[in-house]
Amino acid sequence: MMEFDTIAAISTPMGEGAIAIVRLSGPKAVATADRVYRGANRLTDVPTHTIHYGKLVEQTTEQVVDEVMVSVMRAPKTFTREDVVELNCHGGIVAVNRVLELILEQPDVRLAEPGEFTKRAFLNGRIDLSQAEAVMDLIRAKTDRAMTVAVGQIEGRLSKLVQDLREQLLQTIASIEVNIDYPEYDAEEMTQQIVQKDAGEVRRILTELLATARQGKILREGLSTAIIGRPNVGKSSLLNTLVQEAKAIVTDIAGTTRDTIEEYVNVRGVPLKLIDTAGIRETEDIVERMGVEKSRQALNSADLILLVLNGNDALTEEDVLLFEAIRGMNAIIIVNKSDLPQQIDLERVTQLADDRPIVTTSLLEEAGVMDLEAAIAALFFEQGVEGQDMTYVSNARHIQLIKQASQMIEDALGAAEASMPIDMVQIDLRRAWDTLGEINGDTAQDSLLDKLFSQFCLGK
Amino acid sequence: MMEFDTIAAISTPMGEGAIAIVRLSGPKAVATADRVYRGANRLTDVPTHTIHYGKLVEQTTEQVVDEVMVSVMRAPKTFTREDVVELNCHGGIVAVNRVLELILEQPDVRLAEPGEFTKRAFLNGRIDLSQAEAVMDLIRAKTDRAMTVAVGQIEGRLSKLVQDLREQLLQTIASIEVNIDYPEYDAEEMTQQIVQKDAGEVRRILTELLATARQGKILREGLSTAIIGRPNVGKSSLLNTLVQEAKAIVTDIAGTTRDTIEEYVNVRGVPLKLIDTAGIRETEDIVERMGVEKSRQALNSADLILLVLNGNDALTEEDVLLFEAIRGMNAIIIVNKSDLPQQIDLERVTQLADDRPIVTTSLLEEAGVMDLEAAIAALFFEQGVEGQDMTYVSNARHIQLIKQASQMIEDALGAAEASMPIDMVQIDLRRAWDTLGEINGDTAQDSLLDKLFSQFCLGK
Repeated sequence: MMEFDTIAAISTPMGEGAIAIVRLSGPKAVATADRVYRGANRLTDVPTHTIHYGKLVEQTTEQVVDEVMVSVMRAPKTFTREDVVELNCHGGIVAVNRVLELILEQPDVRLAEPGEFTKRAFLNGRIDLSQAEAVMDLIRAKTDRAMTVAVGQIEGRLSKLVQDLREQLLQTIASIEVNIDYPEYDAEEMTQQIVQKDAGEVRRILTELLATARQGKILREGLSTAIIGRPNVGKSSLLNTLVQEAKAIVTDIAGTTRDTIEEYVNVRGVPLKLIDTAGIRETEDIVERMGVEKSRQALNSADLILLVLNGNDALTEEDVLLFEAIRGMNAIIIVNKSDLPQQIDLERVTQLADDRPIVTTSLLEEAGVMDLEAAIAALFFEQGVEGQDMTYVSNARHIQLIKQASQMIEDALGAAEASMPIDMVQIDLRRAWDTLGEINGDTAQDSLLDKLFSQFCLGK
Repeated sequence: MMEFDTIAAISTPMGEGAIAIVRLSGPKAVATADRVYRGANRLTDVPTHTIHYGKLVEQTTEQVVDEVMVSVMRAPKTFTREDVVELNCHGGIVAVNRVLELILEQPDVRLAEPGEFTKRAFLNGRIDLSQAEAVMDLIRAKTDRAMTVAVGQIEGRLSKLVQDLREQLLQTIASIEVNIDYPEYDAEEMTQQIVQKDAGEVRRILTELLATARQGKILREGLSTAIIGRPNVGKSSLLNTLVQEAKAIVTDIAGTTRDTIEEYVNVRGVPLKLIDTAGIRETEDIVERMGVEKSRQALNSADLILLVLNGNDALTEEDVLLFEAIRGMNAIIIVNKSDLPQQIDLERVTQLADDRPIVTTSLLEEAGVMDLEAAIAALFFEQGVEGQDMTYVSNARHIQLIKQASQMIEDALGAAEASMPIDMVQIDLRRAWDTLGEINGDTAQDSLLDKLFSQFCLGK
């Protein structure tokens, strides 16, 4: 357990709410809170993991700043493994800032840096790096499914897998070492066998893990989705329908910031990040407004295109141009206005769709919406790896490290196959072992840690 | 103590944050949380006011939903005086919503209505109505000073004063009653004396209290402030200067909604609510943009006008027109650009200012800003009642009730003076007593309570 100073920060989101928390962590956490707390007991005297009603006062004037419930949690069974005090005060921006100010006026306590509480949890060995990162993913999760993945990672699912793989690499290295000491065997041949079997197995698992990266990344970051179509085919209705569904998840969220939620819709656990939503609402025509060239750029950055057609109308030249613009892209074709007489040439649509799913809807009458959702979910879960027990790898840093480790093992396999000196094989395996260690932070450097934790929000 | 069902809600503001709280209150709060909690102990067995680490799980699958710290607080020493459980989970919108959902899936628990926790605190007698209202004021406080007033009210300062006044009225009524039973005295004359002395004293205090209403209301709701002036005199610079000062108070508030804070600036504890801020930023000319007639309407709704003049320029006809537009209004005249050679006729400005304060500034060089702040603060605290110990009345409902009660006492005084039947005097005093009781909620009706508490935020 390392020795740090005492830090404090507001740990609840900013905004008007019933409760706000100012959290302190460090050796002087309890003494600091006690200095401004007035209640039945001194906080320095109370048992750990207990809650106390009282008031916070300006020390000089004894003027009451707020009523609070104070949670006293002594090391080591705390979030940071240090002494932690949580001042549970009345919500409100000014009120909670005033309480924080009061705490920061005390000696030997300073404002926490973003992510510093979690960083201490990591440095004090309560969680590893991938777990710490998952805490942030959980906070930013856009759907239940993304949250489940993050919770799994917090629980140490990825950590465990990585640990197992590193253990296996270490054993492989050790086995090779042992062989060198038995000159009665052909060391090169034995090495080749061992590496192929053991390191090959590690590589296979890493490859499997990388296969979840696309889904993991989508769960984490959302599936960039563009809604396109001629004017008046129903793009706004589609947008509203999707957003309406999403509202069921994010009800009553007054203070939600635009960036975080409003542009995401949750379709059966798949977070769609709608591109240029404002544009659709305002002009009902993304292509017209942005010009064909710009639209094409927008389309290229999309993971999924929803092309809306008017079934009550014959296909127009513009429709065909749109099909051309999305050639080869991930798309779902929506034939809308099924409540009206159908004029559209469905055979031609099928031909243009080129094996991509076609869904018939009447957004006006809310018909076909379930089919559309099913089509979206099917696209996402095409490999059928939808199980709750999946270990997803979703973090770009992790993906990068796994790719590198995988390549290093491949190098080792190649070296063994080519009967290169055993040292060379061992170096590659050793590097793979190191690289995987960066995922959990076993081999992380200070600069990396600073960078990672600074991305966290304040108070975490 | 009343018997209610069990309620639950998210009690922290929505947004991305380190910690979010789902709060439960009611007879089944502990049992409900225990059903989905997995930790070292059953929550039903732990002592009150203790904190427990564990996991929340889906009951059917035992799948982990989140890691939590659970606070168990048993009645009666809780916010609602009922059993209260707080599930302290990882922040994030989806995560905390999922935890709330999990709780609401349990039998015999429902989503709390807005303000329902505080309503129970009131109905169970922990706080009175004016204290409950102050909780909301505290959450919405725009400045430290407003917060201090709210904290004073939560502590029961207003409640205590109102109770004392009601007690005094009751004694007055009793004294009159006693006199009726002593026929050796002239009952009418005695009544007149008693009413004049005792009820007169109550009325004097109510009048004093009403005198704080203007300040209290400004502290609570902000001082509507319009910045006017010709183009390029420095209106935008003034706005930026004021907003910059305010930023010191509301630093690092990522998720703050526009409506609540951004339009308020805090000048020495006085919250200025800037009118048409966007207009100034965009066009630099409110009058030109809105037309003279509309501008005049905007000016009329302002509590304070900041008229900016260019000291480097002679007064123009437009300046004089602006002075005319704000005749008789609360205003501060700002002669800006003091860093440049002064061309303005200050004598004429003084004449046009008509005893309203004139401040010389160079907003470019940040000179004179302190003077301006002092002028604003002086306007607000003109009566010199700036003391921290003031009991402010700021709530429109309270002001209305105090005015009514004051009028009723005046009626009683008039009736006594005119030697009206003693019954009449008593009825008026009795009505005043009832009316004051509504402030604390002693005489409140259900419909009023429903209306009041529904204005609270969810989870409070």
